[in-house]
Amino acid sequence: MPDRAKADPFERKLARYAETIVHVGLALKPKQQLIITAPIDSMPLVRAVTRAAYEAGCSYVMPVIDDDIVKQIRYRHGSKKSFDVAPAWFYEGMGVALRAGAAHLTISGSDPFMLNGEDEDAIARGTKALREASVPAMRVTQQLLTNWSVVACATPGWAKAVFPELGDADALERLWEAIFAAARVDNDDPIAAWKAHNAALHARVKMLNRKNCAALHFRGPGTDLRVGLAEGHRWCGGAERMKNGVVCNPNLPTEEVFTMPHAMKVEGYVRATRPLSYQNTLIENIAVRFEGGRIVHARATRGEEVLHSLLASDPGASRLGEVALVPHASPISQSGILFFNTLFDENAASHIAIGSPYPHCLRGIEKMNAGEMIACGVNDSRIHLDWMIGSGEVDVDAIAASGVAEPLMRAGEWIN
Amino acid sequence: MPDRAKADPFERKLARYAETIVHVGLALKPKQQLIITAPIDSMPLVRAVTRAAYEAGCSYVMPVIDDDIVKQIRYRHGSKKSFDVAPAWFYEGMGVALRAGAAHLTISGSDPFMLNGEDEDAIARGTKALREASVPAMRVTQQLLTNWSVVACATPGWAKAVFPELGDADALERLWEAIFAAARVDNDDPIAAWKAHNAALHARVKMLNRKNCAALHFRGPGTDLRVGLAEGHRWCGGAERMKNGVVCNPNLPTEEVFTMPHAMKVEGYVRATRPLSYQNTLIENIAVRFEGGRIVHARATRGEEVLHSLLASDPGASRLGEVALVPHASPISQSGILFFNTLFDENAASHIAIGSPYPHCLRGIEKMNAGEMIACGVNDSRIHLDWMIGSGEVDVDAIAASGVAEPLMRAGEWIN
Repeated sequence: MPDRAKADPFERKLARYAETIVHVGLALKPKQQLIITAPIDSMPLVRAVTRAAYEAGCSYVMPVIDDDIVKQIRYRHGSKKSFDVAPAWFYEGMGVALRAGAAHLTISGSDPFMLNGEDEDAIARGTKALREASVPAMRVTQQLLTNWSVVACATPGWAKAVFPELGDADALERLWEAIFAAARVDNDDPIAAWKAHNAALHARVKMLNRKNCAALHFRGPGTDLRVGLAEGHRWCGGAERMKNGVVCNPNLPTEEVFTMPHAMKVEGYVRATRPLSYQNTLIENIAVRFEGGRIVHARATRGEEVLHSLLASDPGASRLGEVALVPHASPISQSGILFFNTLFDENAASHIAIGSPYPHCLRGIEKMNAGEMIACGVNDSRIHLDWMIGSGEVDVDAIAASGVAEPLMRAGEWIN
Repeated sequence: MPDRAKADPFERKLARYAETIVHVGLALKPKQQLIITAPIDSMPLVRAVTRAAYEAGCSYVMPVIDDDIVKQIRYRHGSKKSFDVAPAWFYEGMGVALRAGAAHLTISGSDPFMLNGEDEDAIARGTKALREASVPAMRVTQQLLTNWSVVACATPGWAKAVFPELGDADALERLWEAIFAAARVDNDDPIAAWKAHNAALHARVKMLNRKNCAALHFRGPGTDLRVGLAEGHRWCGGAERMKNGVVCNPNLPTEEVFTMPHAMKVEGYVRATRPLSYQNTLIENIAVRFEGGRIVHARATRGEEVLHSLLASDPGASRLGEVALVPHASPISQSGILFFNTLFDENAASHIAIGSPYPHCLRGIEKMNAGEMIACGVNDSRIHLDWMIGSGEVDVDAIAASGVAEPLMRAGEWIN
């Protein structure tokens, strides 16, 4: 590791990013263990985070390194019969570690197009098996039992997907610039910048919670969607207190405020405003229709098989688990970059997610039985997949319990 | 990517090596899962093995990638209080997977000097914690419950340690040549070459089992060591049948025949003939004295703290678990290369190992109780560490139960 004072500007910024991840994203406690899941091309960031974590008193950093090429080799040379197999032992162990107090960092940065051109059915089965195997680990973070964060690392494959017109080095540099900017690492004091940004998100959350509306109404090109909200829903956004008492930022960057939709009360149609990359597969031009909360019709011009497989995962996979509002003025949206990465694209536009909700988006959920949860509109699923429905052309109204509509966003921006 | 015309012969040899690993080393069965533990610089081999494994019908390849730099960062920036922490959850999960039928490949190729210069006490504690945490996985392979293999991959760090006088690219090429040669991949038909080599090792095993001697006597510079053998010991070497019925080669390369020493009947002194690298730390010029089977005095000119910590791991760590004979004419010895890697160096010279024995080196051990095992001379320990004691200057005699000595090796070579 180079000495920090002598390090070049990139290394200094990388170190500052790593410290922001450890102190703002994870809010890692002394003596806490840390599991990092990361793609192999993100090793510079993995090592920088490892250093920042140990400097913060971490007791053990366990990187779990994923290789896109190994994945690709499977779909090209594996037996078709084998795609339903996944390493459950690993995620069970990870669930044990997280419940015992370890923190979890996910570094996102895979090539979003890596598996394009491979057999869609094989990928659908492979990702389903992996998704189901990973439930024991995913449940822990979704229930906020421990502090966790998802952040991004620029990698050659991802950079090339985002900036196909640039040379490799330039593309990588541009993507790093966008990541550093979104993570407020350009700022001399990123930790203070995050404090201010979290305060702004918390103020927006407070406003929406005071309003306590019954539904949101999205209107725009190809979209006329009424999303009923769960009874007793709670808006969230920015830093969040986990069940272990740690206040962390589960996503870096984050520009959204979000809450729990009512699983049975979503009506109308919606067109995705950005493509999304799920497990290295691009899903493009999603258009769906809801009836009684359920997606009854779904199309995509690309990755449709993967989308259909996702929707068929379980009964809750075709109902909503999250609705989130992001202004079109969000710095990530204003960068004008299409990232093909949910962590970024979902913070550039209002979005919905099919599948499981975040339990902390409902007041008093701890004391409810299954029947009470269903009555409030809580969805249940093993999947959680965000997709973007907001843009500068989309309006959002808040609908009160009385049925009265009040403008919340116009042309993608907050009214107040 | 290097120029295709130049790259092709290497890629072809790498693919042949990967196939040899899958079919000879692991003898992977269709539908079997495979866990690969490997250093990050070995990805070209990890990917080649992954492909060969899927082509052989493997159902899931799970690479577990280790990064030396992450390790180094820990010793430089971690809290001293934290070095006793290890990710037990991971090895417990791996033990579960191996018991459930997964095969295990270890790719060796770390920089043997990576941690030189770091705090020896910290490394001793860190490696001890890791060793103890890894017991659930290690036990499965040591008891031969599933098929497994240890193989090597040339990496820049290791190549530089072995060939410090060469440029980076030349060093890497030389090390690959040595690895390919030792794995018999130079041969047009490596699988046939391994069949012949396994037959030769099995013939030597048969000869020694017929002899059924009571002890081995090693004499050479700084060495006069009598190693009593366990009552009912069995010589092994080459391909071995695992408990799951698969006949595999647990080491590629392998040139040794080995058996179980008597834990209480080792007397005299011995000087290591090669340095050894344990968990990225070099231990040099080991010299020890045995009394009643136990090491009562141990020195090393380098890495002595790590050695002492190893010997103090548990009561069996200072007694022998393995003794192995390798002729000085072994192709690995004749390469004249000092590999600083046990997989290679132990196949260049006769050696002993402290710690746990291989249970299959004792006849009828399955039916014995603890008292019977102790009476036969079976050692018990959580560690297993080989070190080299043979050379062209070392003689070995077989001592019959009657006390009569018969020459086995002279100047490092088999008598017949």
